Amino acid sequence: MFVIITYDVNVKRVNKVCKKLKEYLTWTQNSVFEGEITKTQFMKCKSELEKIIDPDVDSLYYYVVENPKHLKKTFVGAEKGDMDIFF
Amino acid sequence: MFVIITYDVNVKRVNKVCKKLKEYLTWTQNSVFEGEITKTQFMKCKSELEKIIDPDVDSLYYYVVENPKHLKKTFVGAEKGDMDIFF
Repeated sequence: MFVIITYDVNVKRVNKVCKKLKEYLTWTQNSVFEGEITKTQFMKCKSELEKIIDPDVDSLYYYVVENPKHLKKTFVGAEKGDMDIFF
Repeated sequence: MFVIITYDVNVKRVNKVCKKLKEYLTWTQNSVFEGEITKTQFMKCKSELEKIIDPDVDSLYYYVVENPKHLKKTFVGAEKGDMDIFF
């Protein structure tokens, strides 16, 4: 399945969230990760993320498309460099 | 169709991009708008956005799901307030 995860996380936790997401998905832009993932991996990723965030302050949005062919992705403009510059 | 638009735009242009997106979609989080939209409206939104951004610096990602039932959206944590606080 194809997953897009967007997040709005306090600066104290954002590095941890990014590092965790990078284990499973691809960073595309500020606070956006995406990619193909199995259901089991997705559940694991979710539970690990939800141990990191403070649900009273932070937020995580999960967009899941079971069959990647049902999603069309395009982009315009400058491709962002890789995330390594943040770590 | 259901559309998610994420953007990474220079601070000089971000307000204009947000105002334009708000005409068509719902703000959910930093640099993320989403919602149901017709193909015609989406094409209009896209062309107007692409007149605002500087493609050498800014980026826009469009995720399109023709049939909204193919997309499952969930979220965890704090729901962000409405965007009006930014304008």
